[in-house]
Amino acid sequence: MGRTAPRRLVILTEGQWSPHSAKTAHGMIRYGPDTVVAVLDSSQAGRNVAEDLPGHDIPFVATLAEALPLGPDALLIGIAPTGGRLPDQWRATILAALGAGLDVLSGLHTFLGDDPELAPMATASGATIVDFRRPPERLETAVGRLHGPGKRVILAVGTDCAVGKKTVCLELRRAARRAGQSAAFVATGQTGIMIEGWGVAVDRVISDFLQGTVEWMVEEGERRGDWVLVEGQGSLDHPAYSSVTLGLIHGATPHGMVMVHMPGLTDHDFDHVPGRRFPIPPLVPFIRIHEEIAALVAPAKVVAVALNTRLYPDDADARRLCGQIEAETGLPTDDVVRFGPDRLWAAITTALGG
Amino acid sequence: MGRTAPRRLVILTEGQWSPHSAKTAHGMIRYGPDTVVAVLDSSQAGRNVAEDLPGHDIPFVATLAEALPLGPDALLIGIAPTGGRLPDQWRATILAALGAGLDVLSGLHTFLGDDPELAPMATASGATIVDFRRPPERLETAVGRLHGPGKRVILAVGTDCAVGKKTVCLELRRAARRAGQSAAFVATGQTGIMIEGWGVAVDRVISDFLQGTVEWMVEEGERRGDWVLVEGQGSLDHPAYSSVTLGLIHGATPHGMVMVHMPGLTDHDFDHVPGRRFPIPPLVPFIRIHEEIAALVAPAKVVAVALNTRLYPDDADARRLCGQIEAETGLPTDDVVRFGPDRLWAAITTALGG
Repeated sequence: MGRTAPRRLVILTEGQWSPHSAKTAHGMIRYGPDTVVAVLDSSQAGRNVAEDLPGHDIPFVATLAEALPLGPDALLIGIAPTGGRLPDQWRATILAALGAGLDVLSGLHTFLGDDPELAPMATASGATIVDFRRPPERLETAVGRLHGPGKRVILAVGTDCAVGKKTVCLELRRAARRAGQSAAFVATGQTGIMIEGWGVAVDRVISDFLQGTVEWMVEEGERRGDWVLVEGQGSLDHPAYSSVTLGLIHGATPHGMVMVHMPGLTDHDFDHVPGRRFPIPPLVPFIRIHEEIAALVAPAKVVAVALNTRLYPDDADARRLCGQIEAETGLPTDDVVRFGPDRLWAAITTALGG
Repeated sequence: MGRTAPRRLVILTEGQWSPHSAKTAHGMIRYGPDTVVAVLDSSQAGRNVAEDLPGHDIPFVATLAEALPLGPDALLIGIAPTGGRLPDQWRATILAALGAGLDVLSGLHTFLGDDPELAPMATASGATIVDFRRPPERLETAVGRLHGPGKRVILAVGTDCAVGKKTVCLELRRAARRAGQSAAFVATGQTGIMIEGWGVAVDRVISDFLQGTVEWMVEEGERRGDWVLVEGQGSLDHPAYSSVTLGLIHGATPHGMVMVHMPGLTDHDFDHVPGRRFPIPPLVPFIRIHEEIAALVAPAKVVAVALNTRLYPDDADARRLCGQIEAETGLPTDDVVRFGPDRLWAAITTALGG
């Protein structure tokens, strides 16, 4: 899945502008290669993205018509809802965008390019629909591939979905490049693919081929760099997605894992059955069970903890948390977004003999 | 996926008649509802299935032409190869069977009903192609469903693929019915579906929906019986399939697990990388890690060990092994095929408060 020139995007998040619901939008704004001309979300109209993401001067607009004078060439669907379906109320907006000749970029499970209403509209207007979650034709089970000589594979794991596993990988890759190291990012979800220009949304792959696909992506990552940072998905204790997480651990057979954790979060965002809670697991035993289960196929240690201290507005609190969790786990701990990735990256490369 | 009247089957295993390679054939002969008129395998021609599976008087034939006078109404593909593809050399046989008006029943990943050569032949001759691995249209993630009152869910897990998880479930269900209990079998692989007439080949489901599909199948199992026996897949330490295994553990959230193990087996049948071995794990810590990882979503103990003592021809050796592993694990242990399922079933129901 290659891309050509940078685009000019309108990102659609209608009514769902939050780092959790609109993680595709936030990821593309912060790490994507494209210019974002507007975010289409009537619930935020009149505000500017920079109020939430400093440095990103992008207006919110209430309608597509307001965005068109800004010269976009594509509409990007900025959410990744559970189950990956298209909210019905967005259909009219997408039809209008296609009608105006904008390409539509989507990471939904429902492929917009196969939609009986949207596809003909794209054909009629000459626009292209890109479904970033469309899986590869390749259907191969894992073979137990060994890593190439001199390569080091690092997998981000986490205590929940949407705590920042992708962001941690991208920040660590930035630190690696700054240190003059050759580093690749292996995108395993739709937002990562949009940012990086290649990858596979592994949750869309047929279960029998999940580990084989991850193994193959890591092989490609090794062609692109010596340090290979693999984006994680879900969490090992998640009622719906833990098997995807394990497919990444056993498919990537990493040399080391980085545990991504959001202090202050108490429960998984998973309340389908009234009264049933799924608490975020305690960190120390959760790290141990990751190492035990990895070792069932290939040994791998958790070599660092990457905290997402978003719930603690005060820097001093965030620093205190890093120290506290470093003491609890005995592992180097930092918030790579808030305090920069260089210190944690140095600790990781040391731990992995880089 | 329903079925109507019992069929008269020719089972194709050409050159691969062994309990490991032809596990679909062996499963259907031993537990299926249909009459098997012949097994088509030129490497076994002149022999009788009863030589390997006592009580099943079925001739091996070398060609389809020899089988036709026996009055079959369908050809069943009797293998489930890695990756699930159709061996090229079988295509001519399948075309001939369709040409002769036989239905074709397949559990391959490659859907024969979509094949550009086979599908028109079926249409022309009025035959039907049934792909048992075709996944349901339903695409739902797990919701964390609670089991119904009075229901008990038991999942078969194992130390390898093809050690007899399905067989153990079917034997235990037989014991339950003999004891006058209401019991259902939840088929999660193509052979189980062929035998039982319903189910989903979970390894074919999109990864994001694996746990949601298992959860939904268990709900259906609970409608069909009070004791729900869920067929396991793969093993938690398998380099290619462990994520499917975990999807079953966290999707079924069983009350108890039965560990299926084949003493004497030293390595997984997995030798794609020269010199790289994947040993069968030691039983006691492997049981413990199953309980730990299950508890990440819902607590479940391993309540029994079901041995497959096929590699020990002498009954006395097999009985000694059961005693030895019972002492090692502290769990009731038996070979339910060799010595009958009643004793182990009684121990399981006692452990689960039945």
